Amino acid sequence: LSPRDAEIIQLVRTAGAMSKSELARQTGLSRTGVGSRLAVLREMGLLEELGEGPSSGGRPPSLVRFASDGGSVVAVDMGATSVDVAVTNLAAEPLVHLAQDIDVREGPKGVLNTTTDLVDQVLAASPHAAGRLKGIAVGLPGPVEFLTGRPVAPPIMPGWDQYPVRELFEDRYGCRTFVDNDVNLMALGELWAGAAARVQDLLWVKLGTGIGCGIISQGAAFRGISGCAGDIGHIELGGDTTVCRCGNLGCLEAVAGGEALAMRAEGLALSGESRSLARMLDERGSLRAEDLGVAAQEGDVAAVELVRSAGRAVGAVLASLVNFYNPEMIVIGGGVSRLGVRLLASIREAVYRRSLPLATRDLVLTGSALGELAGVTGGGAMVLGELYGLSPAGS
Amino acid sequence: LSPRDAEIIQLVRTAGAMSKSELARQTGLSRTGVGSRLAVLREMGLLEELGEGPSSGGRPPSLVRFASDGGSVVAVDMGATSVDVAVTNLAAEPLVHLAQDIDVREGPKGVLNTTTDLVDQVLAASPHAAGRLKGIAVGLPGPVEFLTGRPVAPPIMPGWDQYPVRELFEDRYGCRTFVDNDVNLMALGELWAGAAARVQDLLWVKLGTGIGCGIISQGAAFRGISGCAGDIGHIELGGDTTVCRCGNLGCLEAVAGGEALAMRAEGLALSGESRSLARMLDERGSLRAEDLGVAAQEGDVAAVELVRSAGRAVGAVLASLVNFYNPEMIVIGGGVSRLGVRLLASIREAVYRRSLPLATRDLVLTGSALGELAGVTGGGAMVLGELYGLSPAGS
Repeated sequence: LSPRDAEIIQLVRTAGAMSKSELARQTGLSRTGVGSRLAVLREMGLLEELGEGPSSGGRPPSLVRFASDGGSVVAVDMGATSVDVAVTNLAAEPLVHLAQDIDVREGPKGVLNTTTDLVDQVLAASPHAAGRLKGIAVGLPGPVEFLTGRPVAPPIMPGWDQYPVRELFEDRYGCRTFVDNDVNLMALGELWAGAAARVQDLLWVKLGTGIGCGIISQGAAFRGISGCAGDIGHIELGGDTTVCRCGNLGCLEAVAGGEALAMRAEGLALSGESRSLARMLDERGSLRAEDLGVAAQEGDVAAVELVRSAGRAVGAVLASLVNFYNPEMIVIGGGVSRLGVRLLASIREAVYRRSLPLATRDLVLTGSALGELAGVTGGGAMVLGELYGLSPAGS
Repeated sequence: LSPRDAEIIQLVRTAGAMSKSELARQTGLSRTGVGSRLAVLREMGLLEELGEGPSSGGRPPSLVRFASDGGSVVAVDMGATSVDVAVTNLAAEPLVHLAQDIDVREGPKGVLNTTTDLVDQVLAASPHAAGRLKGIAVGLPGPVEFLTGRPVAPPIMPGWDQYPVRELFEDRYGCRTFVDNDVNLMALGELWAGAAARVQDLLWVKLGTGIGCGIISQGAAFRGISGCAGDIGHIELGGDTTVCRCGNLGCLEAVAGGEALAMRAEGLALSGESRSLARMLDERGSLRAEDLGVAAQEGDVAAVELVRSAGRAVGAVLASLVNFYNPEMIVIGGGVSRLGVRLLASIREAVYRRSLPLATRDLVLTGSALGELAGVTGGGAMVLGELYGLSPAGS
């Protein structure tokens, strides 16, 4: 898309239906120029005629509008233990959505087979969208070199280093594919359709099996020089000596990641410190981080304290980042973020205790408004941004 | 300056002398259009005729070039204990430079009186530049609201909160003034003329009485939502219990700031652990952070260990920031950075030990190439960027 075309699309999408002469006025193009651009954009399915607008005397002008259903995007949001796949329209709204448990440690072949099966299913479920597929976005739970679309030494994804994820999707579906760290998709999704409309500088913190952070700087994804900006799971909690799978001591992920919390919850069950967790362990043979949330909701004292200590650990790291980055908003999302209100309260407590007052003066620290749809919404948004230069409607 | 004018200036400045027709070709303007823009820019003193270039047959074309001596900028770089004032040309090169000891805690009136005296002196020393003053930049050692040019609750500057620094300079010198956190000036200076040419994402870490960090994101200063991004001096070193003047425990500045190091050096002198420092304390009655560097150079074991522990503390914080921000380059500057090679070595050691390998793969961690001129060079650069849209030549 040329910059002119992108400008027209963005105008019509944000300002609503518009006449040709209004478009000519706002872009500075001639009416003939606007006409030929519109023909191209209609052909691409991005704009549609709306019929006639109110007349100001002569022939009533025909209006064009953004065709949010004139195309579709496939968005894949892969976590360590599950993958979400959706078809979205050109407003990045998920139309069909499927999720399945996976284990990303089984390596790329099997996991991507499962993923493309899901993609085939969502496309089959929306034949109208399938025929108008514009692009694909894939979020992976680790660092990605955005330009090549390949994972780079992802710590929790053995066998995935340099795997040609982009090529696989482009070959199979015949359309442009963009691969990125999953947290960047989530941050973008929140910007487009969630809690962060009109926010310029955002941290989207994913608390899951791993812990990562999508960074929006001045309205755009910030990836760093090697594509691994936001990898906050291995920031050191000073004074903590928990061993992390990365080999270092006291990493945030080793204390507050989903796997670490499940192990600690089992510890509380086995030691008898938590009756609720002991009962659940008895019933099912193993525990997951979610169980900790259930026990804490029941008022189990040991579970509550474990949730709080996880929140304080996350908050201590975020306090440093608030001093450094002075963001406008921090969104807390991911599976572990659903452990209950005490988690967010403890994160906030630690952030407000240790950040400079000026740095928290304008800070909003909140849960995700999109929840598990943040990733696929952001996937749609990423494709629209990359292909057509579209940015969030509010910005 | 209109975007067109800025484009012409930037072209001529980076590509060298140019003919009118070449400018017309590269900007897409008509020759007449170029001619009228050039007249304006010559009038402003930003461009000059170079005489005639080589002829391609007809009348030899006249060339224009950027008039780096066609105007000047005053740059003020205020630290906690000294102020540097310089006049720079339009290439941000300092022409006259004066420095004086101050105590920023004495409040704005006296300190700014001293400062304007210095400004008057540098202007008197360069009468050619004084007549062509385009703007003033002022760097302060604390958070500044860039839009209003006022300090905001600066921790080490009692009495300065909301003081109208910009108005004071604009009223007295009758030209546009830009006030910013000093570390932002230093980062900008390094980008224009120092170690960071062509760097997009840079952290410039000032180790002085206070500790702060200038952030360059995608080539431009990043200030955060409240203007206090980069305030890393009060990031918590987990496990450390040193009391900081901010009231918290274990702040980086309380362990590795210049004042903290001077106090610790005195401690080593008084306890007899360091003979070198005891001798210096005997001779002068008090110690400064620099003395620690001298003792370490002499091989004094206790002094060496104190320098190393300061380096490790700085490195531990930077390791977190490298994981989060994945910058291309970190520059270490400020008075404390001159404590000797062991300091930089210890910082590097801690950063490489605790950052993710991928995040340090492309990282350059180095000393400042500009030293104490970083701030005033950056002041020149800031005015040129704000007034004329100029960006570093290499970018």
